[in-house]
Amino acid sequence: MYNFSPGPGVLFHDVLEYVQMEMLNWKNSGISILELNHRSPEFRSLLMNTKHKLRLLMNIPADYEILFLQGGATQMFSTIPLNFANKNDKVDYIVNGYWSNFAAKEASKFCNVNISNMSNFNDYTICPDQKDLKISSESKYVHYCDNETIHGCEFDYVPDVGDKPLICDMSSNFLSKLIDIKKFAMIYAGSHKNIGPAGMVLVIIRRNMLTNNKNDIPTMLNLVKLCEANSMLNTPPIFPIYVAGLTFKKIFDMGGIHEIEKMRDLKAQKLYNTIDNSNGFYTYRMQPQYRSKMNVPFQLKNEQLEHEFIEQAKVQGFIGLNGHHSVGHCRVSLYNAMTMDGVVKLCNFMVEFSTYRVLC
Amino acid sequence: MYNFSPGPGVLFHDVLEYVQMEMLNWKNSGISILELNHRSPEFRSLLMNTKHKLRLLMNIPADYEILFLQGGATQMFSTIPLNFANKNDKVDYIVNGYWSNFAAKEASKFCNVNISNMSNFNDYTICPDQKDLKISSESKYVHYCDNETIHGCEFDYVPDVGDKPLICDMSSNFLSKLIDIKKFAMIYAGSHKNIGPAGMVLVIIRRNMLTNNKNDIPTMLNLVKLCEANSMLNTPPIFPIYVAGLTFKKIFDMGGIHEIEKMRDLKAQKLYNTIDNSNGFYTYRMQPQYRSKMNVPFQLKNEQLEHEFIEQAKVQGFIGLNGHHSVGHCRVSLYNAMTMDGVVKLCNFMVEFSTYRVLC
Repeated sequence: MYNFSPGPGVLFHDVLEYVQMEMLNWKNSGISILELNHRSPEFRSLLMNTKHKLRLLMNIPADYEILFLQGGATQMFSTIPLNFANKNDKVDYIVNGYWSNFAAKEASKFCNVNISNMSNFNDYTICPDQKDLKISSESKYVHYCDNETIHGCEFDYVPDVGDKPLICDMSSNFLSKLIDIKKFAMIYAGSHKNIGPAGMVLVIIRRNMLTNNKNDIPTMLNLVKLCEANSMLNTPPIFPIYVAGLTFKKIFDMGGIHEIEKMRDLKAQKLYNTIDNSNGFYTYRMQPQYRSKMNVPFQLKNEQLEHEFIEQAKVQGFIGLNGHHSVGHCRVSLYNAMTMDGVVKLCNFMVEFSTYRVLC
Repeated sequence: MYNFSPGPGVLFHDVLEYVQMEMLNWKNSGISILELNHRSPEFRSLLMNTKHKLRLLMNIPADYEILFLQGGATQMFSTIPLNFANKNDKVDYIVNGYWSNFAAKEASKFCNVNISNMSNFNDYTICPDQKDLKISSESKYVHYCDNETIHGCEFDYVPDVGDKPLICDMSSNFLSKLIDIKKFAMIYAGSHKNIGPAGMVLVIIRRNMLTNNKNDIPTMLNLVKLCEANSMLNTPPIFPIYVAGLTFKKIFDMGGIHEIEKMRDLKAQKLYNTIDNSNGFYTYRMQPQYRSKMNVPFQLKNEQLEHEFIEQAKVQGFIGLNGHHSVGHCRVSLYNAMTMDGVVKLCNFMVEFSTYRVLC
């Protein structure tokens, strides 16, 4: 099976084998990781090691905290404005796809949202250029989504927002490339793409953002309190944390993020070449400059043909190729654990399918 | 190892073995359960089956919805008042331990909280009797915690609150006894006690509670929306849902909740007898009538002796015996997956330890 799902999706086979191997006896403790109490020294050590690995892997400076929380990225859409803005404050959102739009709408419940890229708002086929961004002078922060999983657009630069805190939803491309953490006030990412199983959101936050301890918001959404409690205000998502740690180790073993990034480029290039060379059998809407290297939505001539494509692919062992239910069509997700071999095989199938159909 | 942790704690060995067995190939799908996409028909079927099993097991009427959410029970402490009360509304809380107190304090951020058992508020060694409860006439709901995990008090009756909706935190004793669901407007329980691994809260809610779609609260805390989306407003906690389903099946195989309840009584009786027969070597604070059958906190003469007890127990393979960090001392948790054999062995150790110490 080659799993091209947008998340939850493919995980490293080595990681899954390791999880299986010690499922009944975690680190020779005599118990399963699923039975490990979060107040035990053993769990504290696991948490510390997992954070440490990520810090090394992503070169995260010492003045940034790492949190592992529940609720996914969608919950962060509320958590962020509730923590960093008051009712009458202004905040900035760059909106160029489903998720950044969702985040902006959620924030508008709690404060005043300015759309920074109003000149090309609603064009979900691009990322706005730096020159298109108009940041409010009194803005409390600027939020954007680095990779729009559904619409398949990915930023090829980090927006310069001056002295405003920059907050980034990196759910679907976190761990896929080297980033300069210092440019960000906060980065967050749902776990079920490149990190591990569903049920967690990873947060990297600069410590000087954690000053406003707002007692009138839900405690479980209070980032100051969550940070003070080292992600353990209540029982944390232990199993996703554990699998994340194994994934981080696997990436180290592969040579680090640098190697991952090289593989990512090769895989994306192969797939886009296949689409570009299909004589319009497969097409995509995204402007080439902003094409995502993680999630590649594309279309065939009509819905019937797309259905056949997805079904025949499934028979051949390629799964997860349907587009998001909000937009339909097809989509290939190329997360870190997808091998080049899998991409080559999929591309071969795409060529065969199109050749056969054109001949029919 | 005998794991007496308060949660996460011991799970059924059969369940863990099954998880291990199909970790690389869930239901012969060719992928791991950790790689399963939540928008796939396969996951929808898993979710439906899991809900169905629980409905049968707990005899949940058709007009109740079942939800599997993130954030744990602590997040529900905010979710409940945000959904069911407005700023100036009154709500009732019965407070007789750490968790019910936490829930009441959290609710007081969002509405007016009346403590229903004011006459014995702060006595964390009892559950208030029905006659001690003074429910406000204009109350939007009454909240209580059926089993206080830290203080070890468990209700032996369901409060009669007239026509007010009754909401119950059953985190630590859910699935341990037969309950009449119809008496409740809503029941919720963190997953990491009797249900499965950490990272989920299970909610059973009467459909007529889901009328107030409040658009000004965080979407991920909006019970109407969560219910409309069948627990899938965003990616749900797939792995805990999967393990919960295996746990429900295991309980069926054991003969259902009725058999679990019988075992529970025997295990608790054995442990309390051991404490009661120790000539004051082990003591507990809870009033006998309200002793929890799930979590048994107890003390030894002094902290040094408690430390030795916990350490020696660990050497013998009994883990998780320390009390909650907020109160100290010792605690034994007797969740469903703990065998009678484990309880007998622990009790034998307790007798040996006390005999040896008394002789010394």
